[in-house]
Amino acid sequence: MKTLLLIGIGAGNPDYVTMQAVKALNKVDVFFVLDKGEAKDDLVKLRTTICERFITDHAYRIVEAASPVRDAGTPDYKSGVRSWHDEKAAIFSRLIATELKDGEVGGILVWGDPSLYDSTIRVIQQIVAEGKIAFDYEVIPGITSVQALAAQHKIALNAIGEPVHITTGRKLLEGLPQGVDTAVVMLDNGSGLRALADEDVEIYWGAYLGTPDEVLASGKLADQVAEIERMRAEERARKGWIMDTYLLRRTPRQ
Amino acid sequence: MKTLLLIGIGAGNPDYVTMQAVKALNKVDVFFVLDKGEAKDDLVKLRTTICERFITDHAYRIVEAASPVRDAGTPDYKSGVRSWHDEKAAIFSRLIATELKDGEVGGILVWGDPSLYDSTIRVIQQIVAEGKIAFDYEVIPGITSVQALAAQHKIALNAIGEPVHITTGRKLLEGLPQGVDTAVVMLDNGSGLRALADEDVEIYWGAYLGTPDEVLASGKLADQVAEIERMRAEERARKGWIMDTYLLRRTPRQ
Repeated sequence: MKTLLLIGIGAGNPDYVTMQAVKALNKVDVFFVLDKGEAKDDLVKLRTTICERFITDHAYRIVEAASPVRDAGTPDYKSGVRSWHDEKAAIFSRLIATELKDGEVGGILVWGDPSLYDSTIRVIQQIVAEGKIAFDYEVIPGITSVQALAAQHKIALNAIGEPVHITTGRKLLEGLPQGVDTAVVMLDNGSGLRALADEDVEIYWGAYLGTPDEVLASGKLADQVAEIERMRAEERARKGWIMDTYLLRRTPRQ
Repeated sequence: MKTLLLIGIGAGNPDYVTMQAVKALNKVDVFFVLDKGEAKDDLVKLRTTICERFITDHAYRIVEAASPVRDAGTPDYKSGVRSWHDEKAAIFSRLIATELKDGEVGGILVWGDPSLYDSTIRVIQQIVAEGKIAFDYEVIPGITSVQALAAQHKIALNAIGEPVHITTGRKLLEGLPQGVDTAVVMLDNGSGLRALADEDVEIYWGAYLGTPDEVLASGKLADQVAEIERMRAEERARKGWIMDTYLLRRTPRQ
């Protein structure tokens, strides 16, 4: 039997890696890497750092394949994502079939946690559902940027007894659901933040969380939004990419 | 200066501990433990296991104090929680003042992640705001039961591009907010689950996640609810306590 480990390596700080992930890393014979090319060199470097630092007693090889690019021009967002998943499934399916021998363990490293805004679990489930190749797989959780954000700002995500709503920049354009006073926003290209700029909310913002480039800001959104937008533009220009996350909290109604 | 480390130790599995937490554990001179007495012996055991397994090069002492008990009879839930926090703040304030020497590092171990449904950050912030004793503090994130649940069921928390709503059993009694199709429920005494039993949702349920006693169930909520209630009652009777978490997902509307 072949085994595939989907390993959450945490968001940014190599020390976010769990003992469970370290044990998993040390079982992997072949790492499958979908190379996204240019830009995200820092992410590739983090992956390399983690393998070098934590794999102590196991030889491994790395198999790279070009990552498909999601067609952002597809009018329907979700169908665009689905065809992107189909392409990824075809690639991983081929890699598992041809690059992983029986009895070997394959590994896929996932930034953050595989369960939150990451396609890997869905892509692997799709391959399992197709039923053409037999393998077991396991999921290893990792520290998300949401948790890094809360830890670095030293805040609880939830107000006492209240829910936490984790959402995307795209969804934020529709406004926050009724009854939601705390939202954590991921995958925002900046338009979600701008859409809420006039609301009476506090923001706790962070970019490149957990890394040496980490930037934090907090305060009333109205006071902070221009400065955050300036930093986003500046950092993106400097590094070629940006990953940020933020928490918005409406002033509590008593 | 005194330093206090709020260390998330993850939910149940000692291997959920991160490298960052291991480094933090090895800096701690004094662990402060609020003892909850009887019942949760397993949690105490996990704490001990983690200290013994991961602290390799540092002598430490443990200072215990009786944990205040939240008065569940207070008619207003939040004011009940607030006075409970006041009591905890008074205890930790005394411990930091009397048991932690200048230059020493104090540690508080937090089940899961300090940022999610845990009072420690709020209690420490309250002591800081009172301004009577000077100390620095840091927060170290940990794997939550929400992440353990997703990993063990091998599911993504979010549907493609959709939000994840993390809430409590108590809040669930008010129903899910409009536009929320995925909810993760914590701190449910069983009444939240029962309240939604007739809705057309899938459930992914887990108790004692990450521990050797882990129990999982999944399927249509209507088909699973009776069995989950039976397991909850049986396990609670057997172990004296139960901690469970579940994800509910409405059938996607296309």
